[in-house]
Amino acid sequence: MGRNNSLYFMAFFSSADIAAMEQRYRAAFINSLGGFKSINLIGTTDLEGNLNLTVFNSIFHIGASPALCGMIVRPDVSERHTLENIEATGVYTLNHIHEGMYQQAHQSSARYPKMVSEFEATGLTPVFENDFQAPFVGESRVRIALELREKLPLAINGTTLIIGEIVAVYLPDGIQLPDGFVDIEKAGTLACSGLDSYHRTQRVARLSYAKPGTMPAEI
Amino acid sequence: MGRNNSLYFMAFFSSADIAAMEQRYRAAFINSLGGFKSINLIGTTDLEGNLNLTVFNSIFHIGASPALCGMIVRPDVSERHTLENIEATGVYTLNHIHEGMYQQAHQSSARYPKMVSEFEATGLTPVFENDFQAPFVGESRVRIALELREKLPLAINGTTLIIGEIVAVYLPDGIQLPDGFVDIEKAGTLACSGLDSYHRTQRVARLSYAKPGTMPAEI
Repeated sequence: MGRNNSLYFMAFFSSADIAAMEQRYRAAFINSLGGFKSINLIGTTDLEGNLNLTVFNSIFHIGASPALCGMIVRPDVSERHTLENIEATGVYTLNHIHEGMYQQAHQSSARYPKMVSEFEATGLTPVFENDFQAPFVGESRVRIALELREKLPLAINGTTLIIGEIVAVYLPDGIQLPDGFVDIEKAGTLACSGLDSYHRTQRVARLSYAKPGTMPAEI
Repeated sequence: MGRNNSLYFMAFFSSADIAAMEQRYRAAFINSLGGFKSINLIGTTDLEGNLNLTVFNSIFHIGASPALCGMIVRPDVSERHTLENIEATGVYTLNHIHEGMYQQAHQSSARYPKMVSEFEATGLTPVFENDFQAPFVGESRVRIALELREKLPLAINGTTLIIGEIVAVYLPDGIQLPDGFVDIEKAGTLACSGLDSYHRTQRVARLSYAKPGTMPAEI
């Protein structure tokens, strides 16, 4: 780490500084850099009906038509169970996390053996809806059902990009606005930073669609 | 949209409901569902030195070793300019957004012609550091330099996954903790939801690494 005079009071890290970092230090550092992230519980089941739940902070929007979400799955134990279940059944759920359940959500990332349900281990409640094979989280206020559409191995680091299509959405009454926007802050949804930091949010503003020649207005 | 009696006061949207939504309504709806997202300014230049800046809400962590970030680029005008520049020069910058600049950041998403620099149009300041070819944003407090590593077309919806490696990081003094974690909340970094909603954050807690048999503690 060096000092860069042209950026006032700024610390500078080069490629070599990053490469020299101890592994867990680097994981904490790099995971912080992209900005705030979503944090969700992913619910799955295997073909014998054994339930699995784990927390993911790498869900991202891919497109609205069709309605596609992506997630990056690492080859470690708890995430591999999730991936095996998604491949076996073709379905999974995504469940938002609020302050009343974030500690249990975090705990679901512990490396439980495959036969242990993280629902039981954490005290979260599995809920089944409309014959969908994967379990939702009863405590969660925003719940989404997805079907697997693509699985792309990323050779660059051995992770897997999973693309799912949103096939059902459950929301509390009163959090959707007339233009389609869902006010997830009103549902108490938390944001995440790094690997382990949970944040509530406070809206600054919604801004109007940007057009050349005029500055955006609050909507 | 229907009503699901087993989920108290919950609204239900099926696949068919989603498919029937008007296009902009569906975009606002689906973009809200994944949870809070990062929001960053991406700075690029073409080979003639014409600067480009646009706001992205789809940056995500792919791995820490090597340090990889992903972003989904759509085939529309402002994002295509960014993609063309990244392919031509092999480099780009990622710049966090705070409350003092979020309106200008949002405005950078307007569909300016290719020869118009969004820096000039929005009043944000291009800054060059250490001979890196892409421009940073002077107003931004967390600035990251990336080199293009992979470009994967996603046939499922015509978008492109861009994977970049973090090769330099500039942070304000005093926001990094001893374990490597960077306190981006302290830097005033905003979170985003949907297409146009900007949020400040307030930490609930950092939680210890989860292990079976013991609940996580605040750290």
